[in-house]
Amino acid sequence: MTNSYKHIKGGVGAPQGFLCSAISCGIKNPTATRLDLALIYSEVPCSAAAAFTTNRVKAAPIKLSQAHFRKGEIRAIIANSGNANACTGVIGIRDARAMSAATAKCLELRTNQIGVCSTGVIGLPMPMQRITHRIPELVSALGKNHGADVAAAIITSDTHPKEIAIEVEIDGYPVKIGGCVKGAGMISPSMATMLCFITTDAHVSQENLKKYVLESVEESFNRITIDGDMSTNDTVMVLANGSNSMPAIRRNTASGKQFAAAIKYVMLELAKAVVRDGERVTKFVTVSVQGARTYLDAKKVAEAVSKSALVKSSWNGGDPNWGRIIHAVGYSRARIREELIDIHINDQAACLGGLQAPTPMDELRAIVAHKEFTIHINLNQGNATYEMYTSDLSPEYVDFNRSEYAYWKQARKDGLV
Amino acid sequence: MTNSYKHIKGGVGAPQGFLCSAISCGIKNPTATRLDLALIYSEVPCSAAAAFTTNRVKAAPIKLSQAHFRKGEIRAIIANSGNANACTGVIGIRDARAMSAATAKCLELRTNQIGVCSTGVIGLPMPMQRITHRIPELVSALGKNHGADVAAAIITSDTHPKEIAIEVEIDGYPVKIGGCVKGAGMISPSMATMLCFITTDAHVSQENLKKYVLESVEESFNRITIDGDMSTNDTVMVLANGSNSMPAIRRNTASGKQFAAAIKYVMLELAKAVVRDGERVTKFVTVSVQGARTYLDAKKVAEAVSKSALVKSSWNGGDPNWGRIIHAVGYSRARIREELIDIHINDQAACLGGLQAPTPMDELRAIVAHKEFTIHINLNQGNATYEMYTSDLSPEYVDFNRSEYAYWKQARKDGLV
Repeated sequence: MTNSYKHIKGGVGAPQGFLCSAISCGIKNPTATRLDLALIYSEVPCSAAAAFTTNRVKAAPIKLSQAHFRKGEIRAIIANSGNANACTGVIGIRDARAMSAATAKCLELRTNQIGVCSTGVIGLPMPMQRITHRIPELVSALGKNHGADVAAAIITSDTHPKEIAIEVEIDGYPVKIGGCVKGAGMISPSMATMLCFITTDAHVSQENLKKYVLESVEESFNRITIDGDMSTNDTVMVLANGSNSMPAIRRNTASGKQFAAAIKYVMLELAKAVVRDGERVTKFVTVSVQGARTYLDAKKVAEAVSKSALVKSSWNGGDPNWGRIIHAVGYSRARIREELIDIHINDQAACLGGLQAPTPMDELRAIVAHKEFTIHINLNQGNATYEMYTSDLSPEYVDFNRSEYAYWKQARKDGLV
Repeated sequence: MTNSYKHIKGGVGAPQGFLCSAISCGIKNPTATRLDLALIYSEVPCSAAAAFTTNRVKAAPIKLSQAHFRKGEIRAIIANSGNANACTGVIGIRDARAMSAATAKCLELRTNQIGVCSTGVIGLPMPMQRITHRIPELVSALGKNHGADVAAAIITSDTHPKEIAIEVEIDGYPVKIGGCVKGAGMISPSMATMLCFITTDAHVSQENLKKYVLESVEESFNRITIDGDMSTNDTVMVLANGSNSMPAIRRNTASGKQFAAAIKYVMLELAKAVVRDGERVTKFVTVSVQGARTYLDAKKVAEAVSKSALVKSSWNGGDPNWGRIIHAVGYSRARIREELIDIHINDQAACLGGLQAPTPMDELRAIVAHKEFTIHINLNQGNATYEMYTSDLSPEYVDFNRSEYAYWKQARKDGLV
C-alpha cells in the first residue's frame, strides 16, 4: 500500500463541511478535567456506514446505533469515554437514547440521525447526571479546529490520542479524509475495543460507502491483536458528505479504486496506531504469512502466531524464539508441513525447512531488540498470503489489568453501585 | 466424581509388575545433578494406549512413539526433560530411535516396544553424548520404589513433581493405578505441554484401554488451560499389565465403569495438579458452564472465559470483574442471550440476567482472594454443561517467559548451536 498520501492537519475536522467539539464532563473522573465527551457533525446531509463488534454481548449504544445506521440518515456522532454503557440492560438503552435525543434536539435533527458510542468500564450505569445537561454546551462548542480534542476525548487507557488526515485528488477534486481512533486493551480480530471515526468530504452513495467500510475494516481493524480479547463496544463509523462538490464516486472505476485505497490507508494507519499504543506494548510486530494453500490457512497461521502468549512474551524479552513461533504455526489448524516451513525475522533466516537456520542468534536478537520488526512465515505450499499486526505481551500489561477496582471505588463514591 | 479412592504411595511404581528408575544425565544442565532421564518398565507383557498432541508440528519422539504404539507391543517408556527434541528433523528422529534402541537392548526387547518422550526447549539437537551411554545405568537402577524419581525427572519449569497412586477394588481384585505428570507452560486444550505416564496392574485389553484413555483425556487434560498455547510434545501414555491376576475388565459392565471412573479420576487429579503448578500461577479456577443449548456451546463459553488474558489478569489482582467474563462469553461464538446470563462466583451472584447483581463487591472480592474458586456461568438456554480448569495470568508468567535465551547460551557452550 502506497504511503505517498499527503498528510494534513485537523483529524476528523479536516474534511469540508464537518464540525466537531469535545468537553470534559467528569465521566472518566469527576474531579479531573480530561476531555471525555465528543461530537462530530456534518453540516449537510451525508452518507454514513458503520461496522460494529461481533461480540454477542453488545453495549447499549451499539444496539441503538445499529438501529440508527439501518435507518441511514446519520448526521452526527456523540461519543464518551470512561464508561462503556455495557451490561447495563434497559437502563443502558434509555441512557444511550437520552444522549442521542439531547444531541438531536440541539442540532435540530431526529434522534435516529445520531450515532452513539461509549467506551470504558463495563457493567456500571452511565453517570447521566454529569452528561445530559452538558450536551448543549458540547453543541455550542462545534468548530473546525477541534479534531484533536475529539481524538483526546475518546481515549481511555491509551497513552496518547491517535488521529490522521490525508488529502488525495480523485477525478480532479481534492478529497480529504480524517480519522481518529482509541484502542489500548481488548484488541483482537474481529474488531477491537476500539472506537474509530472517519469523516470525508468525498461524494459517495451510502450503499457504496458501506462496501468500502466493510472491505477496509477487514484489511485493517480485523487484522490487529493486542491481547486476543474482543470488546463489547467496538465501532467504526464513517461519514461522507460530498462537500467537495465532486460527482458521486462509483465503484469499479479508477476513482472508486482510488477512494477505496485511500479509506483503507486511513483505517490501516489508525489500526497500526492502536497496536503501537496498546496497553504496555513495547513492540510492533508484523506477522506476514506466505505460501499457504488457501487464504484461510494463511489467516489461521497469522492469527495463532499473533495471539500466542508465549510468542508475545518472548518478543517482550527480545528473544527471537522461532521454536515458539513454529509451535503456534503447528496448532493453528492450518494445513502445514513442518519440514517445508521457513521463518525469517526481517531479512534474516531463523528457521529453514523446519530446522534452525545458520544465522547467528546474536544477529536475530539484534533485530528483535528493535521496536518494530516483521516475522515472515513461508509455508511453501501455495500462493495464499495474510498479514497481521500484533504486539509483545509485557509483565506490565498483566499488572495493568490486574484490577479495575479503582473504577468501582469511584463508582461507589458516586453512588452508582 | 467421587473422591473416595484410597490413595497409596509409590506413583507409577505402585501397581504390581512395574519397575521404574531415574538418573541425572546433565540434559537440563551439564553441571547440575537434577534428575532428567526416566524409565518405566512392565515386567510382563502389557496393554498400552496413548494420546498425543494434535499440534501439526510434532516432536521427533512423538512421531516415533506413534508408530511404536500402533504396533502395540509397548513394554517400557523412556523420557527425558531439558530438551524437547522438537524441530530437529531427521537428526531428531535418529536420536529418538537411538534412545529407544539402547533401552530395548538393555531390556532385551525390540526397539518398537519402547515409548519415547522428551520435553524441554524446542529446536536444539539432543545432547546424545550425555544420554546414550547412560541408559544401561538407567536400566540397572530399575526398582519398585522410584516412582517419585520418575515424577521428578520429567519436570521442567514445574515447581515440584506431581504424582498420584490409588487403589480400588474391582470384581473383588485390588486394582492399583499410578501416575505422574509434568506441565507448567504451553498448556491448552487440546493436550498440554505435558507428559503424563500412568501404570495399572488391572487386566484390560489393548482395545478397551485405548477407549478408556481417549475418554479420560477428553474429560481431563483437554479441559485445562494455563496460557492457551499447545505444545509440540504432549503425550499421555498408559500401560496396563494385568499383574493382579484378575479376569479382563470388559466395557459396559459394572467393573468396566468402575475402572473407567478410576482412570478418569487419576487423569483429572493430575490435570488439575498441572494447572495448580502452572508457570507463576497463583489461582486455580474452575469455569463451570450450565444451561447451554448444546455441549459445543457450553464448551465454547468455558474455553473463551478460561483463556481470556483480561479475565485471567483480573483474577491475578483478586478482582471479581464479571464484566470481562461476560464479554468473553459474548465473543465465544456460542449462542447466548445477554439478558439471560447469570454469573456466580462460588455461591455469590455477580451478574443476574446480564446485569450487576446486588452482592456487595467486597463479598465477591473476598472469594476471589482465595487460591481456588469456581465461576458458574448459567446461560439459561438449555441443559448442556461443560467444565474447565484454568489459572490466573500473572506479570510473573510473562516475565518468566520473556526469554529462553539462557538455554541457548548453555547450548552454545555445549557446542550444540
